[in-house]
Amino acid sequence: MEITLKPIGIIHTPFDRKETCPIQGVCSKDTWGTIEVFSKHAPGLKDIEGFSHLYLLYYFDRAGDIEYVRPTFLDDEPHGIYASRHPCRPNGIGMSIVKLIKRRKNRLEVEGVDVLNQTPLLDIKPYIPRFDVFETATEGWFADKEFRSKPVGWE
Amino acid sequence: MEITLKPIGIIHTPFDRKETCPIQGVCSKDTWGTIEVFSKHAPGLKDIEGFSHLYLLYYFDRAGDIEYVRPTFLDDEPHGIYASRHPCRPNGIGMSIVKLIKRRKNRLEVEGVDVLNQTPLLDIKPYIPRFDVFETATEGWFADKEFRSKPVGWE
Repeated sequence: MEITLKPIGIIHTPFDRKETCPIQGVCSKDTWGTIEVFSKHAPGLKDIEGFSHLYLLYYFDRAGDIEYVRPTFLDDEPHGIYASRHPCRPNGIGMSIVKLIKRRKNRLEVEGVDVLNQTPLLDIKPYIPRFDVFETATEGWFADKEFRSKPVGWE
Repeated sequence: MEITLKPIGIIHTPFDRKETCPIQGVCSKDTWGTIEVFSKHAPGLKDIEGFSHLYLLYYFDRAGDIEYVRPTFLDDEPHGIYASRHPCRPNGIGMSIVKLIKRRKNRLEVEGVDVLNQTPLLDIKPYIPRFDVFETATEGWFADKEFRSKPVGWE
């Protein structure tokens, strides 16, 4: 079975290089970006203004080779790709939660972007606390990890 | 630009018909399902046991026609597809947060599934409260909506 997708838009961010791209949105709260939704898809944005936070799904178009078990940006110990959010993964879909600041027609100004400039956008879904907040969820190997700079030269 | 994906596994659930499939995981907390990850990808599950909740990304393989603005399962008023999680959407990617109960080799027993039986799995990502909890996020048009049965005959 093969599934074919086409981008519905482009994510514009200040990050042209992997080295300077934040690891997670919580590390880049003050970083603005613009979600450009192609005109064809813009009618689907109706009522999006009511949501303060959005899930973005996008394609890791500049990811390197897939390794099923590898060190991550936050830990030198190797972990399975499905126990991490590393970009080099089968199907290469990325997910970020961003704060919606303002909509201007088919453009959404957002805060907390952690993706490379010109990343192809696949989908937008509203963040809904009733569905999405699991405060007591356990953090696995992340639990005692502090944010750090991306190790130099790591994919 | 075209992006080609291949399923990494299959989601087994008790729901063979759209009519009886829950609208969200929070409506199906007692519903168990099994995530089967194909053997090739199973090494990527290393350390997943540490996480109590997981994001599943999957393909809405039985979705009907796309309408950019339409009524939703929870509201007769029409909303934009990007302000809802309706399955009939461009690129057809679904997202659910499930509770991980037990891993048995390449199978994950989970609770809170809201997808059709035999749904193609695209990705698994760990749920991490530090990244994913936004308690005060606004709910847009969902705010005053109560759960209800799926309107009969609606896609």
